[in-house]
Amino acid sequence: MTAFRAETEFVGWLRARVSSTVPRLKLGIGDDAAIVEVTQGRELVLKADMSIEGVHFTRRLHPARSVGHRALVRSLSDVAAMGGAPKFALVSLVISKATTRAWLREFYDGMLALAERFGTTLVGGDTAVAAGKTLIDVMIVGEAERGRALRRSGARPDDRIYVSGRLGLSALGLRLLRSGGGRAHQAAIRAHLYPEPRCALGRYLSRKRLASAAIDVSDGLSTDLAHLCEASGLGACVWSDRLPTPELASALQPSASDSLDLALNGGEDYELLFTVPPGKAAQVPARLQGLPLSWIGQIRRSKGVVLVRPDGKRSTLRPAGYNHFGK
Amino acid sequence: MTAFRAETEFVGWLRARVSSTVPRLKLGIGDDAAIVEVTQGRELVLKADMSIEGVHFTRRLHPARSVGHRALVRSLSDVAAMGGAPKFALVSLVISKATTRAWLREFYDGMLALAERFGTTLVGGDTAVAAGKTLIDVMIVGEAERGRALRRSGARPDDRIYVSGRLGLSALGLRLLRSGGGRAHQAAIRAHLYPEPRCALGRYLSRKRLASAAIDVSDGLSTDLAHLCEASGLGACVWSDRLPTPELASALQPSASDSLDLALNGGEDYELLFTVPPGKAAQVPARLQGLPLSWIGQIRRSKGVVLVRPDGKRSTLRPAGYNHFGK
Repeated sequence: MTAFRAETEFVGWLRARVSSTVPRLKLGIGDDAAIVEVTQGRELVLKADMSIEGVHFTRRLHPARSVGHRALVRSLSDVAAMGGAPKFALVSLVISKATTRAWLREFYDGMLALAERFGTTLVGGDTAVAAGKTLIDVMIVGEAERGRALRRSGARPDDRIYVSGRLGLSALGLRLLRSGGGRAHQAAIRAHLYPEPRCALGRYLSRKRLASAAIDVSDGLSTDLAHLCEASGLGACVWSDRLPTPELASALQPSASDSLDLALNGGEDYELLFTVPPGKAAQVPARLQGLPLSWIGQIRRSKGVVLVRPDGKRSTLRPAGYNHFGK
Repeated sequence: MTAFRAETEFVGWLRARVSSTVPRLKLGIGDDAAIVEVTQGRELVLKADMSIEGVHFTRRLHPARSVGHRALVRSLSDVAAMGGAPKFALVSLVISKATTRAWLREFYDGMLALAERFGTTLVGGDTAVAAGKTLIDVMIVGEAERGRALRRSGARPDDRIYVSGRLGLSALGLRLLRSGGGRAHQAAIRAHLYPEPRCALGRYLSRKRLASAAIDVSDGLSTDLAHLCEASGLGACVWSDRLPTPELASALQPSASDSLDLALNGGEDYELLFTVPPGKAAQVPARLQGLPLSWIGQIRRSKGVVLVRPDGKRSTLRPAGYNHFGK
């Protein structure tokens, strides 16, 4: 690592950037392992997610601060989709020899700022320098009330399907970034570079026992709804005109069919997709802390997902979400 | 991934290989995150360790089963050095497109056989296919009795220094593997390909409150003892003739000075290095479940580590442990 002479120097540098006086953190970065306390009567939520250069981000499009932010969002969002509260993070990092100290500082600034906002403490990980692509693996330890975690498998026939926020905005932001014409459209670009994990919503749905099932929309609605239906052994219908498609107040606004495609298959929105029994639907607010919640469809007994158009035309919705850099 | 058509197929394949009926495992592989229960009155021990092709293993020297075994040992050994009991593992895996299903089966066979022996359940992780090197990141969630975890920083002046097992055997095994002449020396080769994490010893030292400090010998005694001394703000002396150097019953037995170098700097032994207050030294057994424990030195007030030869000659022992593939 040219930015640091040795791993011990890097660990010291990192340790100085991370708070070590956190409740229930007994031993942080620097020993064989970290030691933390957990609250009694809670269950642990465990998740790991990798971010790989050239797959999940590129140096050209993503500033280091965004790379750090997004690497953490991937795991935080999964914990949110379980209704958990993220608490501790381990971050393993493989960086190329050419990585500068400035890049690392920005990377950790982005990651640690997000971690702090969500009450998550970096307690360890591993670091290596290698030729080739940069890779980040973030592991989160979260907590959930015993027996109340939101699973993918809990949906029942006639449950209503909801989604938070707007879908497809991140994919639209990526498109604008690639074309270089998006500086005037900060909402979409920000949605792509700095997506917001929906931890408060997940906690709300879990604590109020509102949701019967939940998943985060990381691969695109078409793919993630298929996962939820498969885990629940059921199907669904989705009304196309109820989908919260991306909106831009400008000539760059995509066409209606393009908007629909972005919302269905765009991915990386990190919104929550959840189901609510009909008897509890009246308790679902239109907005939670400013975040809109849209009723977009219904769970059905028959397998598969059907997309229903305003004119009543029905078509099978196949999982077509994609990894933006994977193809 | 040529071995599997899609990630869902891989996840299904993996899920079938992993036990899902484990006490306190509430939700395993396949949802947004795993859910586990932890025991009340205990603290969590958290650790992540990466294994990178070309750095920590090569396809030529290391069978897939050994790669899986060693990737898990790295984290297990750190938990052992804290006196913790490993419970749950997340495994993130980046594999090259050319990876075969046979390699993956052997890899997981090696990892899961070791995990089962040590009461550790694989509960999740992440998987990606990418060009380039294979990489494995293993995160362990372990438990330790509240306030009894073994830290690097607890050593006091005059504490005795002990090490388990034999040091340098793994490095010798690697040398034999490289030269191709080692088939008759299974002990050394086995020590390299299938090192044993010292979890029982760590638990014993923690429960009996015997050790004042502990670390695992992963980088070589000279480096890891320096870490322990630095964390404790002290120094040490080590008697060269008390070091448990590698032994081979053959003409391939290294010379005395070579043996000493292997024991001091070989690395990857995954033995435990620990300190014991003089008043408790009588309680340290010569062997624990067949594993020899050697008294090799003493903690001193003055910084730095001194190596004392049988003839009384003293020299400064500088950290010279190395990463076998890193140079």
